[in-house]
Amino acid sequence: MLQGKQTWKFENRPVIIGAATVVGPDEGDGPLAADFDLVHPELDMQQKSWEKAERLLLEQASEFALNNARIEKDQLQFYVGGDLMNQIISNSFAARTLGVPNIGVFGACSTSMESLAIASLMVNSGAGQYVLAGTCSHNCTAEKQFRYPTEYGSQKPPTAQYTVTGAGAVVVAATGDGPVVEYATIGKVIDLGIKDPFNMGAAMAPAAVDTIQAHFNDTGRTPKDYDLIVTGDLASVGHPLAKELLIRDGVPMNDTTFKDCGLMVFDVDRQKVQAGGSGCGCSAVVTYGHILKKIAKGELKRVLVVATGALLSPLSFQQGESIPCIAHAVAISGGKE
Amino acid sequence: MLQGKQTWKFENRPVIIGAATVVGPDEGDGPLAADFDLVHPELDMQQKSWEKAERLLLEQASEFALNNARIEKDQLQFYVGGDLMNQIISNSFAARTLGVPNIGVFGACSTSMESLAIASLMVNSGAGQYVLAGTCSHNCTAEKQFRYPTEYGSQKPPTAQYTVTGAGAVVVAATGDGPVVEYATIGKVIDLGIKDPFNMGAAMAPAAVDTIQAHFNDTGRTPKDYDLIVTGDLASVGHPLAKELLIRDGVPMNDTTFKDCGLMVFDVDRQKVQAGGSGCGCSAVVTYGHILKKIAKGELKRVLVVATGALLSPLSFQQGESIPCIAHAVAISGGKE
Repeated sequence: MLQGKQTWKFENRPVIIGAATVVGPDEGDGPLAADFDLVHPELDMQQKSWEKAERLLLEQASEFALNNARIEKDQLQFYVGGDLMNQIISNSFAARTLGVPNIGVFGACSTSMESLAIASLMVNSGAGQYVLAGTCSHNCTAEKQFRYPTEYGSQKPPTAQYTVTGAGAVVVAATGDGPVVEYATIGKVIDLGIKDPFNMGAAMAPAAVDTIQAHFNDTGRTPKDYDLIVTGDLASVGHPLAKELLIRDGVPMNDTTFKDCGLMVFDVDRQKVQAGGSGCGCSAVVTYGHILKKIAKGELKRVLVVATGALLSPLSFQQGESIPCIAHAVAISGGKE
Repeated sequence: MLQGKQTWKFENRPVIIGAATVVGPDEGDGPLAADFDLVHPELDMQQKSWEKAERLLLEQASEFALNNARIEKDQLQFYVGGDLMNQIISNSFAARTLGVPNIGVFGACSTSMESLAIASLMVNSGAGQYVLAGTCSHNCTAEKQFRYPTEYGSQKPPTAQYTVTGAGAVVVAATGDGPVVEYATIGKVIDLGIKDPFNMGAAMAPAAVDTIQAHFNDTGRTPKDYDLIVTGDLASVGHPLAKELLIRDGVPMNDTTFKDCGLMVFDVDRQKVQAGGSGCGCSAVVTYGHILKKIAKGELKRVLVVATGALLSPLSFQQGESIPCIAHAVAISGGKE
């Protein structure tokens, strides 16, 4: 199953039999609005705290994913999830609601593909027939925790990113119809010394590059094997950096097939989201909402999703530490050879 | 591989070929002192912050585990780890130092067995030949984050627990000599409404009971199949509660074979640690330091380690939420039938 140094080949072809995404108003105002299962018109979602709103997103995405997969809750065997909150509390509360055995993971914004990789490993190896993978983020919980409460109205530099309010979940199954998870490449922690939490795209770009190169080395594939290679949330500062680093290293990339979820989820200039989207929900809603639909329609045949995570904590930043980063890549295909 | 509802049977018998534990002064003053690879005489370990000290513990335990496993760093393929810190930053920094692909997990104090379960799944399914699982906690980082800085000298109620300063790591391998990982039972999030972070043993007891019962139901085993069933860190309040709940449900438990790492790691009365030890490091250092040595000597043949986690965050507590809890169980045997 291990191929090369850090890639899992899923020979038994685990299938994504159902996916769902739930987002907030900004994402509903963006270019991918039509791809989401539910758009909340208000950021608070009629909850008493931002944290309760974030939890609701994940609970709804999980419930909708089960519906879309046409399985009952008691058929679901495991739930693999995580989020950006301290002690991934949104995941724990959603797991309490779901009532199935839970594997909590943390990879910051790479959690989307980390959880999908583990769920696929479980299904591929017979450790489960139906496994849910899910993640979420909320603009106001993340800004409050990592920077300042949004109510303060603090100014942000143009390199800063705008945390996506959204949750995405998929049901990975041993058999069924849907896109197939072909490979997962697990990333290393890369840290080139950047300390600015308002410039996480630049911090994360080298981790994305490292994982993309590892994926190609391990699998023997090249960029031509993919209709789309999409990074998680490098946004307008980090994404061009990643492209430049890859090209410098002899990996050809062009703007048609190398994209970034953080630049796809918003109309960046019009929506005033600084450099673009970020957060666990960013790559989750773009992949599970938009990309999987394109695969289902046959508009994309094979996609590599490279979810990037900046693994800082508010405390590590305050203590002057640099930002360790990671990226996990998952290859998804239409399933028909 | 899935057996029953939530248990993985590791048919290929992944082996723990090396283990290591590094602890602080209180653990070095406790009854298991001789079982640890390194005892730091001072809590700060000559580091500039408690967080740097915690990170050092995990880095040292990982390095010693590789040495004890007699493998080189470049043979190690993956590292699965987590800790109690916000955004599991100790894990991320240790992974940066190790330089191998990292899967970050979070299950609060259940992280020890969560990471061992995932590492064993990976090895069992051929997703890796050498996988490190590790976790850590530090009394002063955890107290500062979850309650008050220890420097304040706050009084604590007798139901409170004392976070273990320590790290434990194991190398799980496809072949080799050592204890065998037989089963892992992944727990559900259980929350009976307890909101007091100074009484986490009581909050976690029902989760331990749920996972222990699930393990027996799934595997057909009974308590008699184990020389020792050990909970992670229920301590003097939670452990008797768990025993009572199990006996009430017809699962016989006695004090000789049903123990708790939080009560084993300290001389509870003499060392003034309130109800006993807790933290990610608690079950890790007791299992990887003490129990594995007993298994190696043949004094224990088969052990079920039920690591318990209280999944609260400081914020969820402040917002009046109850404490969701989880327990993951791993069955380890001497390897010789």
